[in-house]
Amino acid sequence: MSVLQTSAPAQLTLAERYRAVRGFSEQLAAPLSAEDCAMQSAPDASPTKWHLAHTTWFFETFVLGERQGYEPFCPAYRYLYNSYYNAVGNQFPRPQRGLLSRPSLAEVEAYRSHVDAEMNELFDSGAFGCDEEAQAARVIEIGLQHEQQHQELILTDIQHALSINPLQPVYREGDFLASGPAPAPRWVAFDEGVRTIGHVPAAEGAGFAFDNESPRHRVFLEPFELCDRLVTCGEYLEFIEDGGYRRPELWLSLGWAAVQEHAWRAPAYWRRSDEEWRRFTLAGERRLDPHQPVACLSYFEADAYARWAGARLPTEAEWEVAASAQTTGAPTGRFVDGAWQAGEAICPRRQDGVTTPLRECFGEVWQWTSSSYSPYPGYTAPDGALGEYNGKFMCNQYVLRGASCATSSSHARLSYRNFFAPEARWQFSGLRLAR
Amino acid sequence: MSVLQTSAPAQLTLAERYRAVRGFSEQLAAPLSAEDCAMQSAPDASPTKWHLAHTTWFFETFVLGERQGYEPFCPAYRYLYNSYYNAVGNQFPRPQRGLLSRPSLAEVEAYRSHVDAEMNELFDSGAFGCDEEAQAARVIEIGLQHEQQHQELILTDIQHALSINPLQPVYREGDFLASGPAPAPRWVAFDEGVRTIGHVPAAEGAGFAFDNESPRHRVFLEPFELCDRLVTCGEYLEFIEDGGYRRPELWLSLGWAAVQEHAWRAPAYWRRSDEEWRRFTLAGERRLDPHQPVACLSYFEADAYARWAGARLPTEAEWEVAASAQTTGAPTGRFVDGAWQAGEAICPRRQDGVTTPLRECFGEVWQWTSSSYSPYPGYTAPDGALGEYNGKFMCNQYVLRGASCATSSSHARLSYRNFFAPEARWQFSGLRLAR
Amino acid sequence: MSVLQTSAPAQLTLAERYRAVRGFSEQLAAPLSAEDCAMQSAPDASPTKWHLAHTTWFFETFVLGERQGYEPFCPAYRYLYNSYYNAVGNQFPRPQRGLLSRPSLAEVEAYRSHVDAEMNELFDSGAFGCDEEAQAARVIEIGLQHEQQHQELILTDIQHALSINPLQPVYREGDFLASGPAPAPRWVAFDEGVRTIGHVPAAEGAGFAFDNESPRHRVFLEPFELCDRLVTCGEYLEFIEDGGYRRPELWLSLGWAAVQEHAWRAPAYWRRSDEEWRRFTLAGERRLDPHQPVACLSYFEADAYARWAGARLPTEAEWEVAASAQTTGAPTGRFVDGAWQAGEAICPRRQDGVTTPLRECFGEVWQWTSSSYSPYPGYTAPDGALGEYNGKFMCNQYVLRGASCATSSSHARLSYRNFFAPEARWQFSGLRLAR
Amino acid sequence: MSVLQTSAPAQLTLAERYRAVRGFSEQLAAPLSAEDCAMQSAPDASPTKWHLAHTTWFFETFVLGERQGYEPFCPAYRYLYNSYYNAVGNQFPRPQRGLLSRPSLAEVEAYRSHVDAEMNELFDSGAFGCDEEAQAARVIEIGLQHEQQHQELILTDIQHALSINPLQPVYREGDFLASGPAPAPRWVAFDEGVRTIGHVPAAEGAGFAFDNESPRHRVFLEPFELCDRLVTCGEYLEFIEDGGYRRPELWLSLGWAAVQEHAWRAPAYWRRSDEEWRRFTLAGERRLDPHQPVACLSYFEADAYARWAGARLPTEAEWEVAASAQTTGAPTGRFVDGAWQAGEAICPRRQDGVTTPLRECFGEVWQWTSSSYSPYPGYTAPDGALGEYNGKFMCNQYVLRGASCATSSSHARLSYRNFFAPEARWQFSGLRLAR
Repeated sequence: MSVLQTSAPAQLTLAERYRAVRGFSEQLAAPLSAEDCAMQSAPDASPTKWHLAHTTWFFETFVLGERQGYEPFCPAYRYLYNSYYNAVGNQFPRPQRGLLSRPSLAEVEAYRSHVDAEMNELFDSGAFGCDEEAQAARVIEIGLQHEQQHQELILTDIQHALSINPLQPVYREGDFLASGPAPAPRWVAFDEGVRTIGHVPAAEGAGFAFDNESPRHRVFLEPFELCDRLVTCGEYLEFIEDGGYRRPELWLSLGWAAVQEHAWRAPAYWRRSDEEWRRFTLAGERRLDPHQPVACLSYFEADAYARWAGARLPTEAEWEVAASAQTTGAPTGRFVDGAWQAGEAICPRRQDGVTTPLRECFGEVWQWTSSSYSPYPGYTAPDGALGEYNGKFMCNQYVLRGASCATSSSHARLSYRNFFAPEARWQFSGLRLAR
Repeated sequence: MSVLQTSAPAQLTLAERYRAVRGFSEQLAAPLSAEDCAMQSAPDASPTKWHLAHTTWFFETFVLGERQGYEPFCPAYRYLYNSYYNAVGNQFPRPQRGLLSRPSLAEVEAYRSHVDAEMNELFDSGAFGCDEEAQAARVIEIGLQHEQQHQELILTDIQHALSINPLQPVYREGDFLASGPAPAPRWVAFDEGVRTIGHVPAAEGAGFAFDNESPRHRVFLEPFELCDRLVTCGEYLEFIEDGGYRRPELWLSLGWAAVQEHAWRAPAYWRRSDEEWRRFTLAGERRLDPHQPVACLSYFEADAYARWAGARLPTEAEWEVAASAQTTGAPTGRFVDGAWQAGEAICPRRQDGVTTPLRECFGEVWQWTSSSYSPYPGYTAPDGALGEYNGKFMCNQYVLRGASCATSSSHARLSYRNFFAPEARWQFSGLRLAR
Repeated sequence: MSVLQTSAPAQLTLAERYRAVRGFSEQLAAPLSAEDCAMQSAPDASPTKWHLAHTTWFFETFVLGERQGYEPFCPAYRYLYNSYYNAVGNQFPRPQRGLLSRPSLAEVEAYRSHVDAEMNELFDSGAFGCDEEAQAARVIEIGLQHEQQHQELILTDIQHALSINPLQPVYREGDFLASGPAPAPRWVAFDEGVRTIGHVPAAEGAGFAFDNESPRHRVFLEPFELCDRLVTCGEYLEFIEDGGYRRPELWLSLGWAAVQEHAWRAPAYWRRSDEEWRRFTLAGERRLDPHQPVACLSYFEADAYARWAGARLPTEAEWEVAASAQTTGAPTGRFVDGAWQAGEAICPRRQDGVTTPLRECFGEVWQWTSSSYSPYPGYTAPDGALGEYNGKFMCNQYVLRGASCATSSSHARLSYRNFFAPEARWQFSGLRLAR
Repeated sequence: MSVLQTSAPAQLTLAERYRAVRGFSEQLAAPLSAEDCAMQSAPDASPTKWHLAHTTWFFETFVLGERQGYEPFCPAYRYLYNSYYNAVGNQFPRPQRGLLSRPSLAEVEAYRSHVDAEMNELFDSGAFGCDEEAQAARVIEIGLQHEQQHQELILTDIQHALSINPLQPVYREGDFLASGPAPAPRWVAFDEGVRTIGHVPAAEGAGFAFDNESPRHRVFLEPFELCDRLVTCGEYLEFIEDGGYRRPELWLSLGWAAVQEHAWRAPAYWRRSDEEWRRFTLAGERRLDPHQPVACLSYFEADAYARWAGARLPTEAEWEVAASAQTTGAPTGRFVDGAWQAGEAICPRRQDGVTTPLRECFGEVWQWTSSSYSPYPGYTAPDGALGEYNGKFMCNQYVLRGASCATSSSHARLSYRNFFAPEARWQFSGLRLAR
């Protein structure tokens, strides 16, 4: 049986958390060769090595670089590993990240060690304990959450890159924990009314959140129902076999255009062999298990499936209100850190044996909502470079809620707003029906 | 002084309204040659001739074609003038509409006459008076509103096409009604609370609305303020002169990319001559009048201007709640039908002498909101081909509210949801600030 | 039976030839509406109206504009109707020629009349009789040949534009002159040796030629054979039915890429209906006549066919040497001026009843050669703007020899070097085999 | 002083040559990390690792694979490392070669060892001594020349890839052998007449040549002159400073379009720093030496320079006739094998102290000719897959003659026809003037 975790943060110091998060990035890179780590298979994906360097750049630029006397490890890295922070300066062109054979993986590892050593020295000096340093501590928290985001991207980006290789490489073997047919779906009802969503302010004792999860605010919801579990691969196959990819009336106009342009006939990584449907995973290509949650869908596909099923996608407010009713505290689910340690495959699966009305809210797939990614009422981006973190992307993207099998347990939270363009489908993105 | 109209529908019969709307399309085409009417200057724009034919196709296909014994005017038109209705069949490729020199403009006029004659015969027979025909009458109403939408597109599309011609052609001369400096802007405040927006159901006596304006529903609004008037060209010039187009921190990420890709330096149709800013209009190129409302902005530019000004765009709910407080009944503003008759230029201008707290809600420029175009709670697209009218476009577009100088008075209404992609800027699209 | 003409110039004065050529352009435009004349269906094709104006611009710019006191008809035309002469100034963007609804067709006709009147006045004044004006007379000759080139393009460009219209419009009805099966092809042999090709210098009494046909020079040819007639549609059909478009081994690498990219399955304008092959022509869509010469092939298709047939394309030197052996003077064939007057369809056909060893050297299709378009030894482009006429295009184009059914009789000559990119196939371009 | 070599083949057996050529590929890869070897920086360039594997695939497919009982090292390689041989089967998409992190460099090295062991076994068995095996021996010769071509591409492709890295990586340090100003250029004259070019048939004792160098055939040449040395960087700088990249009259039409599209302002790898011109080389970025031959030019730039200089490019026949007059036997020049051993930089330089009238015919830069790459009279591609080696690329490419500083001495020969598209400029391609 699989490992369900809660995201409740263990009582760790900032320094302990720093070491844990940083160490996990290196664990994720460990199964990969230097050649693997250098590949970039799409403009929106990045090489593993770049992720390792950029997350380090974050601490160097926004923490160490702000402190008097710090000498950068290599001045060119300021440019090379800047992702999109115009306030920091120009950026090496994103689509060419795969052309940086130098610095080598070993040099990037040295860069990580150097920055970690400097950070540890700061921690040891007790720098972040006092009030004057609250802002620096806050930036370190952001840096850790930032690195956890990139950990998830390391997994989804390498899955994409390896999938192109006809040798069907294995990133890491893992146990797929097969199980029987999923139970019939049930609808869970929620009343209408004014509800409050968004991050509970820290003053009230809550933990970290990105700026885009605030301010906490009121919304009015009509009565709605959510399905108690995720849509499965088997259910999605019925959609395919019913001509789902050939019927324009099921699709948004842009979605139908994407189906034609990319010749989509199934979710990403699915392949119809002579006798069966197969799926490329981080543990190599496997026979498709119809009982597990469907993943690697675009928004367009999730939306078309829901229409075909006579339902719809939830709004993000509905999702948050419903999910908040399932938990008295921290999200519970199957997360990457637990699965990694247990030797499980990094692949969505059903959460059996859960007793809350809604299952799989966290830890298998990010769940597309119908909500365009937009600022909450009263939102303002922070000042300075970190103001570029979230706000400037609030256009033509859709919100996903929950967390996936590639998310760390300490990264999941109720108010989390993930977002991707509606045609993106290389993430662990699936859906839960609403009506 | 300019003509302000209210959109209150005169007490006309359906047949009278049919004749009036259809006739106005021909008035709009009258200043144009057959060559003018055939041009297509962008994939998203269409030739005037195509608009004239497609709006006729709508009545032929959805009204006449549903009636026993009707013989199509020309069977090939079913394909040629289908815009995007997959339920009706395939469509002639949109980007090639400018290659249809045949049917000639004269043949399209004959097509219009034929369909009008058939429609008039139906009206004269009293067909749509009885209950059995309520649905057909509803489709005719849609057809008229549909034609009014295309009337606005006739104007914006021909403005775009003519603007490319270095001879700076005049579509129609008109009076620009110059006026003095705009009054200083004032903020109008609105309280928080649960509000109701959307189309008031017909059962309660309200008139026509598209499906996307329903269901009427409740939303919760935080307290907000709207500016009492539109942003002017002169105010927008300050943004330009303050480096607005060179400062990435003012822009959404996609907006900044669009600025680079298209080398935007000013709104559409603006040109800096040696001594002054000039603007191409439907009455030819003119000196820019800084006191009039800015128009032909993309969502990206409206958003960047608002950020620069320390404000933001309103949501569509805020806009509707605020605008509904200004009027006891029908929208009032300067509309294309009145301006046309009065010989005024089709170009946004200030509405002076209005006594409501908010001015220019209707009739100068469509006003970008920050709301992504999405279904209202409980929305379902109608069955059949007409279900493709609105719902399938609810992705990656933003809602504009109000009405423009190219909108007919009988087309404007409080709950109207116009929508365009965020990079579109060939419409009369401007902005009103919120905070 | 069809009209065979010789290209021997009647003894006409320059003025008479000017009027004849200019008048023929207007005859070619006569079957077209103003809407037809405004369309541009590909970046490399131009609207009829543009051709009418540009050929006029040529005389205005290079003849009238060189004379003291001439006032341009409209100064903006210098920019609007400049095709590619950087020495004259900037050019209106080529792909947007279809967006010039103004000047109207009537205005372009007025422009033609104005320039013609000025030219006629010059002719009447005896201006070009004296030695001082020899250069001006030479430029007029170029202008007439230039206009004849554009006459051919008027026909091929409008055929392309009309072919896109599903109504299958007719440009001009015409007699197709059906005939029986083509005789079996025969090979005609030529000896090896040093041969001389290129334009015979005017000092030796020869007529006009473009700069690219000079200098006359020697080449060494190995022994070779040419087929006595053109490849027919029926023969080409055998290639198609033998999998010609599915067998990469028959194609140049770039040709095979073009087949995939454009999904070529047959020559341009061919369409397989339920029961038969049909072809779009200037007289509408017709059943394919297998006995007539194949046309509207790209270089890639001509080359692939030749390889399939166990032969090859001739070089341009081989073609010229062989063709020069057939004629004691002027080229003979079926040309557009004669066919027009006789009411024949503008469509390639067989030349029966010819007694020379090689048939159809002139007047049905331009014949692809394997020769890249390059300068003859000793070639130098003329000084000034007219130096841009030919020389700068000598890259990545292939030479076609002969003349087509759309060429005027007084435009055909032995040394003529037509040239197009290897993927171009909207011309009347076919092939003759060599080995 | 630099090492001049002659290409005269030492008296080595086929087996000895096999080992020497194969070993040199590995020497070339030795300075690179596995990450370096995996990069692909342009669709037309390939990763070093791919070159190492593909050249091995050639021997496995065309030599070992033809022999009974051979088991492929890995069946998937047949697809993965097929470049463009349709007769062998499908090919892994060329632009994605940089995404093959697996097989690793170590696995590719194992593949090489395996094939080498099998080949050596065959050599040891005396297989290729007898007449029956003449064809197999011929294929091995092709395979060795093929590998030498890829050795040159290893160098030019990695130079391109490393040049994108702002860290300016060094492939291999080397001595640049600076020298003083180049002597003034002199023209060497050649008479008119029928000349014979192309590969001397093997029956007459000559060595290897590719199919495209045959048949040997006669051409007629007008009198011409060639410059005695290559154009230098300093001379090319004068062209730049005279506005060469801003003057359309100097360029072919397609060349001028390329200048605009790619914003070319200097040869590839040149960069204007604050004080001086610098050039990226395989030994890192260096100050530009004006006295050395200019390289990394497109055909368009070579052609424009020649026009600016009042000269032209030679034809390939002129080049071959002129070069053949310089040598009584094997080409002499500075080649990669000698330079490598001597520790010289792989970068074009002047050949001082040469006494033949023409210098630098071989071994510094490939020299653009004005000749389009086309078949020699009587050329037919060989049967089978190897027929795809050369013939199918004879379109829209231009011939370069000589050999470069990246060519092996045993690969250079008088009749060699190198070819690239006219916009290609990542090769060591320069020019010699003709008139």
